[in-house]
Amino acid sequence: MFSRDAVLFANEAFYQAFAVADLVAMDALWAREMPVTCIHPGWHALNSREQIMAAWREVFTNDNQAPLICRAPEAFVVGEVAFVICFEQLPDAMLIATNIFRREDRQWRMVHHQSGPTPGHPSQLRDAQTPPLRAH
Amino acid sequence: MFSRDAVLFANEAFYQAFAVADLVAMDALWAREMPVTCIHPGWHALNSREQIMAAWREVFTNDNQAPLICRAPEAFVVGEVAFVICFEQLPDAMLIATNIFRREDRQWRMVHHQSGPTPGHPSQLRDAQTPPLRAH
Repeated sequence: MFSRDAVLFANEAFYQAFAVADLVAMDALWAREMPVTCIHPGWHALNSREQIMAAWREVFTNDNQAPLICRAPEAFVVGEVAFVICFEQLPDAMLIATNIFRREDRQWRMVHHQSGPTPGHPSQLRDAQTPPLRAH
Repeated sequence: MFSRDAVLFANEAFYQAFAVADLVAMDALWAREMPVTCIHPGWHALNSREQIMAAWREVFTNDNQAPLICRAPEAFVVGEVAFVICFEQLPDAMLIATNIFRREDRQWRMVHHQSGPTPGHPSQLRDAQTPPLRAH
């Protein structure tokens, strides 16, 4: 059984690489032994390492990229796979994300990221009110 | 090594339960042995079985709920965990989803669902053009 703390550490490394626009760190934390996929908010799916890193390169060279802070991450570990759900706080909006990690070379490496808009707030993560429907 | 076909079958069962508003089938396909979480588009995270099923009950009794069709699912299997990314086609919009499954009692059961808006289209899943940034 692997610890949730180690998964949360890997999740934090992801947001740290984002915060400082560190392409080398971002590249290092994505898995190499299995397919990787990434769905940025409002985007289609990127489903190759090349596409994913090209998108990060574009994000990191965009002067208008808003700073983003990870809030209220919660980790779920299932053997050698884990996922984290967390809020992503922008200056003017809140997003919510699913980040999937897999053990590779004794490290948790990212295999999938999806982020999308939410009306929620970190304090609502555990004490949620269902907003008006529809669900989809 | 478990087959991707079995994961895609479980994913299809999820959308079939949605399509026919079958609460019993929906309940049966979510995991029971580990925590489950669900992020509907534009919602906060639901992180208990009770919240998730209450939300489905609300969705299934909403006469304005639009029909939804799963398009271009792709499955990724990592031991006893798997995830599917797929498009969710509504009459007037396209969503994109991450569905995570875990083996329980020799079946793939859902442990997490996140869906959010995308400008993409199933044909773009493999041959994607990066849209204008920003990423987050």
